Amino acid sequence: MTGEHSSKQYDMDLETIRSRVLQMGGLVENQFQDAIKSFRIGDVELAQQVIKGDEQVNRLEVVLDDTCNHLIVKRQPAANDLRMVMSTVKVITDLERIGDEAVKIARVAASAHERASGLNQFEFVRVISERARDLLHEALDAFARKDEKQALKLIAQDAIIDHEYSIILRSLITFMMEDPRTISVALDTMWVAKAIERIGDHAKNIAEYVVYVVEGKDIRHSDYVATKLEL
Amino acid sequence: MTGEHSSKQYDMDLETIRSRVLQMGGLVENQFQDAIKSFRIGDVELAQQVIKGDEQVNRLEVVLDDTCNHLIVKRQPAANDLRMVMSTVKVITDLERIGDEAVKIARVAASAHERASGLNQFEFVRVISERARDLLHEALDAFARKDEKQALKLIAQDAIIDHEYSIILRSLITFMMEDPRTISVALDTMWVAKAIERIGDHAKNIAEYVVYVVEGKDIRHSDYVATKLEL
Repeated sequence: MTGEHSSKQYDMDLETIRSRVLQMGGLVENQFQDAIKSFRIGDVELAQQVIKGDEQVNRLEVVLDDTCNHLIVKRQPAANDLRMVMSTVKVITDLERIGDEAVKIARVAASAHERASGLNQFEFVRVISERARDLLHEALDAFARKDEKQALKLIAQDAIIDHEYSIILRSLITFMMEDPRTISVALDTMWVAKAIERIGDHAKNIAEYVVYVVEGKDIRHSDYVATKLEL
Repeated sequence: MTGEHSSKQYDMDLETIRSRVLQMGGLVENQFQDAIKSFRIGDVELAQQVIKGDEQVNRLEVVLDDTCNHLIVKRQPAANDLRMVMSTVKVITDLERIGDEAVKIARVAASAHERASGLNQFEFVRVISERARDLLHEALDAFARKDEKQALKLIAQDAIIDHEYSIILRSLITFMMEDPRTISVALDTMWVAKAIERIGDHAKNIAEYVVYVVEGKDIRHSDYVATKLEL
């Protein structure tokens, strides 16, 4: 009986960690979306909320890291469960970094209102920001459901974001060269695009950890995705 | 007797991990320095070596991660040792990302030779690159020696790099505005400066993990450094 009870308790511990990661994921998704919104409509107050909100993201990182360590010491998980916990620790790091990127976007948004220009900054990043938002959401979803198939698709999608990012860069450089008065504004847009591209990378990392949990296979830096998806 | 032997074996396992991390650290330091050198003297071949060398960095990340997981399952470390292993896992991630930043610098170096300009690109990043190189080296040294005092000093030093980075940005923007023909070259320099600034951040992370190992205290996102150094 004690064995069974303690195993149930163990499952509950694992479940608690999982649900807290998703809670942190939800918070980070909101931070990202609020940052983009503040950039789109030039809402300085909202941008400052995002900057302030990063404290909570950071707090969650520290607490969750600690929870994972405690679980390892207390439960001495076998290889399977340990994979889940170690992946969680890495997902947390990526989520925290996404929070940092959201702050970078918000910082641009908070200062951008000071500059007037003919450049519609948001239009440059509209598509890429929607794509990164979806990628992040679906990566967290794949993590929640341990859905390897979805994770593999997402990993392949990050290349689209990288490609779009390079197109944005080139078109911003063209604007700057044609009209040097747009340099400041174009650079601001560039930093926002860069932050979004980084968020895509982190979302891809999360998807890679899902495959690691499910398959027990570390597919980072390998051709595993292309092979699996028959690309 | 068996207990003692198995404990010695355990110490050796921990020591193996530690020395492999330092080996990875040395490799990453070289990658960074070769990338900077290729940018300084315009050596495309060296730049391509760096890009190719990233494979080895990535391989070490996967292998070391795996070694850490095995150790946890096999040895079921107590809180103290687990802290060391968990920090190692995070240090590995930072080292791998430093490798990525070195590749970014090398990519700029590999393409920069195609452009002629009056801008001496390297002069912009000379000081910041030396500072980041030293910070990384000393962070790895502090990790090797579990030197908390040195780690705390290093954490404070990253702010200097961030400050210098913002000065570089501003001065590059001025160049671009004054002479739009420098835009391409100035942007290349900007990406290199950005990569170096990121390397400083990762070196700072490594120093933070040292404090965590020694003190058992997670000082990320806190005023701990300022308090300890009486700033």
